[in-house]
Amino acid sequence: MSNSCTPPSDLSSLDEALACCTPLSREPLSSEAAAQVVPMLKAIADPARLRLLSLVLSHAGAEACVCDLLPYFDLSQPTISHHLKVLHEAGLLDREKRGTWVFYIARPAATAALANLFTAAGDASGVPA
Amino acid sequence: MSNSCTPPSDLSSLDEALACCTPLSREPLSSEAAAQVVPMLKAIADPARLRLLSLVLSHAGAEACVCDLLPYFDLSQPTISHHLKVLHEAGLLDREKRGTWVFYIARPAATAALANLFTAAGDASGVPA
Repeated sequence: MSNSCTPPSDLSSLDEALACCTPLSREPLSSEAAAQVVPMLKAIADPARLRLLSLVLSHAGAEACVCDLLPYFDLSQPTISHHLKVLHEAGLLDREKRGTWVFYIARPAATAALANLFTAAGDASGVPA
Repeated sequence: MSNSCTPPSDLSSLDEALACCTPLSREPLSSEAAAQVVPMLKAIADPARLRLLSLVLSHAGAEACVCDLLPYFDLSQPTISHHLKVLHEAGLLDREKRGTWVFYIARPAATAALANLFTAAGDASGVPA
C-alpha cells in the first residue's frame, strides 16, 4: 500500500508523471518514494533556483538560455549556469547545446509530478491508491 | 507583473492559498514570492519530514501525535518531534497540546498553495495573472 514514484529522469511523459507521485494525503509516502522526490525539492528549495525554474517555465517556448536569464539576477553567469545545472540534474529541466549557448527546456512532466504530490487526495489525477 | 505570495502563516483558508502562489509557469516568480515559498520547500526537502507530512495528511482526521508517527521510523522521539516542529514553523502543520501529547494537524491551505505553484498555467485555479 505504500506510495511509489518513478525517478524524475524517467518521467518522459505527462501521463507517467501524473501516475508517478500519488498525493501525500492519499497514503503514507514510502521511504523509497521520498528518496526519489527529495532531490527535486532540494533543487528548488533555493530562491535563485526557484525563480530560475519559474523564468524558464514562463519564458516563450518554455525554454531559455543563460543569456535570457542573466538580466533578472544580480549574480554572475557561472553562478546562474551552476544553478541551472542543479535544476537539470534534479530532472526539472532538460538542456540542449545550440551554437555557443546551452538552452534549458521545461519538463512539464516533472512539475506535474510535484503538483500531483501536493494535490488533495480527492482532487488528484494520479493513479488510484 | 511579478508573482506575489502571502506568507504561509497567513494562509488561513483554502481560497487564500489558491490565490496566494500563482503557477511558476504563468509569470516569473518575484524575489519576494520566492523568499516566502522557499521555507516551505526547505522544510520538506528532507526524506523524514516529507514522509512525516504525508503521514499526518493521510492519517485519520488529517492529524497525528508523535506517538502515532514513531512506529514508522527508525528515529528517536526527540528527532521526530524536532522534524514536526520544523514542519510547523514552515507553516505546513498546525499543532495543539492535548493532555501529555502534542498533536500535529494538516493545513490544507499550505499544501494547496504548493500544488498551485506547480500546476501548469492553463490548469491553475489561482488568481488571474
